[in-house]
Amino acid sequence: MYSFKELQHIVDTAIKKSVYPGYLPELYDPITYIMSLEGKRLRPCLVLMGCNLFSEDIGAAVNPALSVELFHNFTLMHDDIMDKAPLRRGAPTVHRKWNPNTAILSGDVMLVEAYKLMAKVSPGYLEKVLDIFSRTAALVCEGQQLDMNFEKQELVNIQAYLQMIELKTAVLLGASLKIGAVTGGAANHEAEELYGFGKNLGIAFQLQDDYLDLYGNPEKFGKQVGGDVLANKKTYLLIKAFELAGPEEEKTLRKWLRPDAPRPEEKVSEVKKVFDALGIPEKIREETALFTSRAFTHLDQVAVPAEKKYILCDFAEKLLRREK
Amino acid sequence: MYSFKELQHIVDTAIKKSVYPGYLPELYDPITYIMSLEGKRLRPCLVLMGCNLFSEDIGAAVNPALSVELFHNFTLMHDDIMDKAPLRRGAPTVHRKWNPNTAILSGDVMLVEAYKLMAKVSPGYLEKVLDIFSRTAALVCEGQQLDMNFEKQELVNIQAYLQMIELKTAVLLGASLKIGAVTGGAANHEAEELYGFGKNLGIAFQLQDDYLDLYGNPEKFGKQVGGDVLANKKTYLLIKAFELAGPEEEKTLRKWLRPDAPRPEEKVSEVKKVFDALGIPEKIREETALFTSRAFTHLDQVAVPAEKKYILCDFAEKLLRREK
Repeated sequence: MYSFKELQHIVDTAIKKSVYPGYLPELYDPITYIMSLEGKRLRPCLVLMGCNLFSEDIGAAVNPALSVELFHNFTLMHDDIMDKAPLRRGAPTVHRKWNPNTAILSGDVMLVEAYKLMAKVSPGYLEKVLDIFSRTAALVCEGQQLDMNFEKQELVNIQAYLQMIELKTAVLLGASLKIGAVTGGAANHEAEELYGFGKNLGIAFQLQDDYLDLYGNPEKFGKQVGGDVLANKKTYLLIKAFELAGPEEEKTLRKWLRPDAPRPEEKVSEVKKVFDALGIPEKIREETALFTSRAFTHLDQVAVPAEKKYILCDFAEKLLRREK
Repeated sequence: MYSFKELQHIVDTAIKKSVYPGYLPELYDPITYIMSLEGKRLRPCLVLMGCNLFSEDIGAAVNPALSVELFHNFTLMHDDIMDKAPLRRGAPTVHRKWNPNTAILSGDVMLVEAYKLMAKVSPGYLEKVLDIFSRTAALVCEGQQLDMNFEKQELVNIQAYLQMIELKTAVLLGASLKIGAVTGGAANHEAEELYGFGKNLGIAFQLQDDYLDLYGNPEKFGKQVGGDVLANKKTYLLIKAFELAGPEEEKTLRKWLRPDAPRPEEKVSEVKKVFDALGIPEKIREETALFTSRAFTHLDQVAVPAEKKYILCDFAEKLLRREK
């Protein structure tokens, strides 16, 4: 069994070795650039872990692992254009460092490159792996569409929000494990359970992210406290708060959500007071625990020795316990 | 053997039958929209023709044919954003009718859908077909990048221009035939010759397009005479003219290429006079004939009965003789 650190090292080495044609730097440099930005490489490591559960030799999973990471970064490159984001992992986004056209076209060729790598799996697994990959890719696009729709909607319900994070974030974690499992020779039902594990873990992870924005230790979390609150982002916290708010609390929330609301620090603390009064932190922790528990129910169904599952449990723990 | 008209009908019927999820109209309606715009369906028909050369049953080629048409329209959707084009086939472009974000994300999901359809070929051909498709898709992106680079360059040489149209337009025609041939059971070398036929025909076709802009019958060609000249587009005509121009001709060309050049009608006729004096119409006709002849040399190498090749010859003739 490989440790998570070892897997990260394998992924990073493979990424550093990836070479794109040198004769069109405008097209290919942004790929090297975005792939070189610091990242936890969760998805490619999940591919390798999925494989490693069923096979000691994870060599066959390296190309699909890189493929999933390329795909993920392609979605970031295009999402950043759509969201007009200036920064990604602390560095300028591709559409800012170059321009939006470059980000569109480099992203397109990244998606093609992701398919090229995915197509390198053993021919016997090709059909199955491609089916998982393409279906997931379409769902991720749907998730981004839902997220953009939410920006324009006044009210979003929790159910729709959970569906959005499932599509935008969670299915790719599930698919990464599943693709890895397939390349490791897993049976269909085991690959499916791992998908369920990854997907539910992904939802829990995103909920945790929403929670930590306001309730995390800023030094460990590494982001501005209440960044989502300041940006009026429709996270689980805010949506749940509107769901549970009485007239007074709703009035307070609406006041602070106005685009011309003054005093950012006061905004964060006042909104937090409303959340606390409504018991939102407990609600989101319960919801996170629910999805985590669902994830582990799926993992229980996978018939590999407990010591092999340990790395996945450990991964889940670290993911969900990080910097609280 | 199916006639071109019959193949167009098969393609149109299959496109009309394509249904995308109804729950996210913002994402999927633009696909239905761009696919419904009138088009000649050259590429999917080439897939079917390629198959029909080797097999009477072209059923297996319908999904890859649709895939290639989806891919082509995906490139149009994204190119139109990059080129800020207001119209496509006389109708508003997706980024104008909706917005650029919609055109980015719908395009992305179109590329995924194209892969989904391509992956439906018989498992025995999947690896080969995907390899052709992905390699071609990357080349088409490179062609678009070269085209965008040319916009910013003052001087472009003929060699670079020919490479650009090969990548942006011609390789997909070649790949369409090749993919069809593979699904029809062609041997590798025959599929390769068909690729050569399609690619060279594609270059000839694009050169013809450049020629017809200024020398075509406007009623038959259906575009404004000299549209490329008015837009200062770096077509074969203009690039060759700069290559052959003496100081006087170059001065005249530069005068009319200035952004503030007055009197559009005079511009077209004066630029045309320079082209005529330099013998550009003859040059481009020679070049077109050269690529056409190369195309047919490839077709000669394909060992199927002459009557089966007839539809391809007829197609090539119609493509190149159209509305002169």
